[in-house]
Amino acid sequence: MNKARSPVVGIIMGSQSDWPVMREAAKILEDMGVAFEAKIVSAHRTPQRLVEYATTAKDRGLKVIIAGAGGAAHLPGMAASMTPLPVLGVPVQSKALKGLDSLLSIVQMPKGVPVGTLAIGEAGAANAGILAASIIALQDDAVAAKLDAFRTAQTESVKEVPEE
Amino acid sequence: MNKARSPVVGIIMGSQSDWPVMREAAKILEDMGVAFEAKIVSAHRTPQRLVEYATTAKDRGLKVIIAGAGGAAHLPGMAASMTPLPVLGVPVQSKALKGLDSLLSIVQMPKGVPVGTLAIGEAGAANAGILAASIIALQDDAVAAKLDAFRTAQTESVKEVPEE
Amino acid sequence: MNKARSPVVGIIMGSQSDWPVMREAAKILEDMGVAFEAKIVSAHRTPQRLVEYATTAKDRGLKVIIAGAGGAAHLPGMAASMTPLPVLGVPVQSKALKGLDSLLSIVQMPKGVPVGTLAIGEAGAANAGILAASIIALQDDAVAAKLDAFRTAQTESVKEVPEE
Amino acid sequence: MNKARSPVVGIIMGSQSDWPVMREAAKILEDMGVAFEAKIVSAHRTPQRLVEYATTAKDRGLKVIIAGAGGAAHLPGMAASMTPLPVLGVPVQSKALKGLDSLLSIVQMPKGVPVGTLAIGEAGAANAGILAASIIALQDDAVAAKLDAFRTAQTESVKEVPEE
Amino acid sequence: MNKARSPVVGIIMGSQSDWPVMREAAKILEDMGVAFEAKIVSAHRTPQRLVEYATTAKDRGLKVIIAGAGGAAHLPGMAASMTPLPVLGVPVQSKALKGLDSLLSIVQMPKGVPVGTLAIGEAGAANAGILAASIIALQDDAVAAKLDAFRTAQTESVKEVPEE
Amino acid sequence: MNKARSPVVGIIMGSQSDWPVMREAAKILEDMGVAFEAKIVSAHRTPQRLVEYATTAKDRGLKVIIAGAGGAAHLPGMAASMTPLPVLGVPVQSKALKGLDSLLSIVQMPKGVPVGTLAIGEAGAANAGILAASIIALQDDAVAAKLDAFRTAQTESVKEVPEE
Amino acid sequence: MNKARSPVVGIIMGSQSDWPVMREAAKILEDMGVAFEAKIVSAHRTPQRLVEYATTAKDRGLKVIIAGAGGAAHLPGMAASMTPLPVLGVPVQSKALKGLDSLLSIVQMPKGVPVGTLAIGEAGAANAGILAASIIALQDDAVAAKLDAFRTAQTESVKEVPEE
Amino acid sequence: MNKARSPVVGIIMGSQSDWPVMREAAKILEDMGVAFEAKIVSAHRTPQRLVEYATTAKDRGLKVIIAGAGGAAHLPGMAASMTPLPVLGVPVQSKALKGLDSLLSIVQMPKGVPVGTLAIGEAGAANAGILAASIIALQDDAVAAKLDAFRTAQTESVKEVPEE
Repeated sequence: MNKARSPVVGIIMGSQSDWPVMREAAKILEDMGVAFEAKIVSAHRTPQRLVEYATTAKDRGLKVIIAGAGGAAHLPGMAASMTPLPVLGVPVQSKALKGLDSLLSIVQMPKGVPVGTLAIGEAGAANAGILAASIIALQDDAVAAKLDAFRTAQTESVKEVPEE
Repeated sequence: MNKARSPVVGIIMGSQSDWPVMREAAKILEDMGVAFEAKIVSAHRTPQRLVEYATTAKDRGLKVIIAGAGGAAHLPGMAASMTPLPVLGVPVQSKALKGLDSLLSIVQMPKGVPVGTLAIGEAGAANAGILAASIIALQDDAVAAKLDAFRTAQTESVKEVPEE
Repeated sequence: MNKARSPVVGIIMGSQSDWPVMREAAKILEDMGVAFEAKIVSAHRTPQRLVEYATTAKDRGLKVIIAGAGGAAHLPGMAASMTPLPVLGVPVQSKALKGLDSLLSIVQMPKGVPVGTLAIGEAGAANAGILAASIIALQDDAVAAKLDAFRTAQTESVKEVPEE
Repeated sequence: MNKARSPVVGIIMGSQSDWPVMREAAKILEDMGVAFEAKIVSAHRTPQRLVEYATTAKDRGLKVIIAGAGGAAHLPGMAASMTPLPVLGVPVQSKALKGLDSLLSIVQMPKGVPVGTLAIGEAGAANAGILAASIIALQDDAVAAKLDAFRTAQTESVKEVPEE
Repeated sequence: MNKARSPVVGIIMGSQSDWPVMREAAKILEDMGVAFEAKIVSAHRTPQRLVEYATTAKDRGLKVIIAGAGGAAHLPGMAASMTPLPVLGVPVQSKALKGLDSLLSIVQMPKGVPVGTLAIGEAGAANAGILAASIIALQDDAVAAKLDAFRTAQTESVKEVPEE
Repeated sequence: MNKARSPVVGIIMGSQSDWPVMREAAKILEDMGVAFEAKIVSAHRTPQRLVEYATTAKDRGLKVIIAGAGGAAHLPGMAASMTPLPVLGVPVQSKALKGLDSLLSIVQMPKGVPVGTLAIGEAGAANAGILAASIIALQDDAVAAKLDAFRTAQTESVKEVPEE
Repeated sequence: MNKARSPVVGIIMGSQSDWPVMREAAKILEDMGVAFEAKIVSAHRTPQRLVEYATTAKDRGLKVIIAGAGGAAHLPGMAASMTPLPVLGVPVQSKALKGLDSLLSIVQMPKGVPVGTLAIGEAGAANAGILAASIIALQDDAVAAKLDAFRTAQTESVKEVPEE
Repeated sequence: MNKARSPVVGIIMGSQSDWPVMREAAKILEDMGVAFEAKIVSAHRTPQRLVEYATTAKDRGLKVIIAGAGGAAHLPGMAASMTPLPVLGVPVQSKALKGLDSLLSIVQMPKGVPVGTLAIGEAGAANAGILAASIIALQDDAVAAKLDAFRTAQTESVKEVPEE
């Protein structure tokens, strides 16, 4: 995987255990030809790493940050507090409350600091990749073309009649 | 209000009654110097208008769509199904379920069609404006500068000590 | 299965993965002798197909539409926005939120565009079939007789005493 | 109000206090030219009246029953258990739980006995009227014409631009 | 099991599938020496059986009714509407909503018709048996003695220190 | 009010602020001719008073305890842990969560210690009174007669047709 | 108010609008004779201030931090990530979701970084003050004595019988 | 395990079945060198044991109580009602409602009697141990040093890049 070459999207997640979900975002970005990096940045266990990551993200050339976390999920909102870049949040499904806690912790940001939040779990992670690509596509015709192709293929893949 | 001159952001909402919420997005975009338009497009009462709006949005020069709706809120997701542009969703607070229905109807999109969802109500509408501005700012230094100034002013506005 | 001969009920669903749930509706309609068709129509991945399906449904002779979807379930409501036919909605159980999102996305329609919503999952799909049959039965004595027989048999099938 | 002349739709509700909600259904039916009756039938306080109402409904010429109730809302489901007619349920907003209890009590019917459930509160009551009209319209061209006119007028009533 | 000899408690449930839960109530009553009967009475599939059961319960010598049901659980409340006997309700865990629907459908009864509701699932069924026994014990010293013994044994069974 | 003469029902509540809800239970018991007492017993602020109340209740001649509390409502369950009498619980509506916390804190008792739980708020308090009366009525023909009269009057009070 | 003299408890809150809730904590600490400071520290609008506050708290002599916030409430958890001091969290009631979002955002912290969470709103703020005092009391006999007196007075303040 | 030597933290739980969760607290305290005891104290099945435990806890030298329970979880709050020591509550995940009932039953304490509540399940139990250690560390430099080391090791254990 070509994760580290001049990335324009940064995928961060609170722990290794979030990766099976968050790699859905990575897969999409690979398919779209968007350079990205994937890092573990825990808001609670590595707060200093988070400060460094978020405050330097724009200068390092990132254009979009995708942040995934579960439970009391503070990573997306705290990243958004420290960068002017658009931040997309992925609520990772939690054990007891099935991601409802993750969702509310990410989406209910106060006025002034937005996080564009996607669905709970793998669908949300993939969609964060697509949404990031659609933002990159505003400036990058190659990505725009791949996004169009992806959407067309997706439409064409839907069968007419359900099969047993 | 300078809503209609070469807009790059389209604000759509399901009904006139959503405007007191959605104009928070408009105010932010005005402050940021981002040209926008605001339209009523009801997914349920004017589905044909929605098709026309969404399928022509990119060609008309829009770069971001902000869609607000309440209850069984289908406008953001349906707009996202018909445009490759990034779509941001604002759950408008509903009467009985206080916007929980609006939130889940917007954020829980299936894999393949993302909506970047903000908080329920006015905070979410304002934040949709800020997030849209942050996307526009990737290509527009004037907006980027205004966004930075907004964020700095916001930080400086926070008093040190609570007042009675 | 005799799905395609002069159908009066159209069963649509958002994806192939909804079929194990939605075929409960199909089974009931077969038992009731109601001609139906079953199609995959994704509101988000095939919005144009949805427009075509819903806007032509009445002229093609359909009398009732049953639509099943999960998560941010927009298919039933969007179908209802484009046809005067009665539309019945089946919330398919979602992974994280167990169908609560599906239910609220379908049932909380705004004034003006109704969806008659059934229970989450297979029970709801079967019941959509029965409700559709009860609507058809208003004009079709054969179906009315089968519905009565179904109800009588159902009552008689309930044992008096629970068995280990 | 012409509630009692050869009604084809029966509106029933658990108590007088439900009438401010349920008369939204009545208004729609009046507008559509559908003859209806409106009765108070409490599942819990007048169970015998419920048995009589539901078991005789079809023979008295009714074609659709609309039932509204709040809290542990048993009226729609119990009516559906005693008539082969299509039954539509309206969850009336409750004081403490805001109609979530009403909604789940009505919509989560077991396999075999369907209730087509509408949104919580006045929007749901109006929509029950529209859905009943759409069922009647399958057999009554005058109602079908009024329903089409209603839908067209509704679409045309949506302004293009939000007003302050 | 001595279920049918001069029962003073009637256990009813909506379907055979509720028995694995409801037999926890039966076990307790057996242990307490309380004569009971266990019947399947479906509010929705056998409404006439429910009317007969509830309206004759007192005259047949029953003193308490325990009713268990899941989903849109109408059995306890409808039984309570047709008998002056105390009715205890057991919410059986449902598939999608895990018994939250069952609980709200049973407990949120309107003023005038009470159901004494226990916990969701097996614990609630056992507790319905204990609560019924505590009511019977007010008139029956033998049951009162067994109830006291049960409570004492329960207290004594709690170990001091957790074991691996 | 004749609250203290040889009471057979004890109404307890966590604080003075619960009385406007709990007096609905008292009113019913007065109407039914059931002698009762009403006391403030706070599980959290007066735990020793609770121990004394619950452990002596049976010997003092009480036959049923009605306990009302809000939020983390421990009073009903703790009373039930210290008396073999039947305990009925009334969830008082809380400010933030509208009584959902009160309800779950009362109803979800573990196996072995039941609380017969009524609806949230005033309806539940009144119903606790009715349920207590129905238990007393098993041994007291005068109460049974009043309960029957209450139920008959309730049925007769339901109007046939809703009034504007 | 003696807020700033050698404080051992730090009360922080996300915005001025939280003060009407959080001053309940301050009142308690004043009553208990615990020196405290009260500051506005917004996790999202002043993240650098938060870093400075939390990382220096222990060295400045604080022993407990009380943090209140609403919605996607990240302040308590982020403070806890940057100090070894005990952190207590107060969920401030939010507009749409009534503090359920605040509660879950604060309490559902991942393993490794605890926040001791209190009830939603003013009761929780007061209780954070009491819990902080109980921690300080472990080392400070004067505070311990005041806490005992507070608890005794609280017990004695509970009336025996409810008053109209 | 060195559970019983001059304990300063008492871990109590409602039943043996809570131990697989609560031993996470024990493990942490062992790692931190904090002496503790672990006991089963059921609020509902052994209320007298609870009174004895809570009222003697301070005199026996305990400084913090950790209480875990599920469902209608009354143990933490009742312990807090009978001791001036800080009480920490751990909501054990329940079968039907996944710990939401446990959480609300513990956290929503009324003004005057606080419980510092942690996350649902094992993460919450471990965090209760850490929070207890952070309270003990205010007076015990050895524990403070171990807590700092634990936190540093935790930070260092977070990998930079997710691994497949």
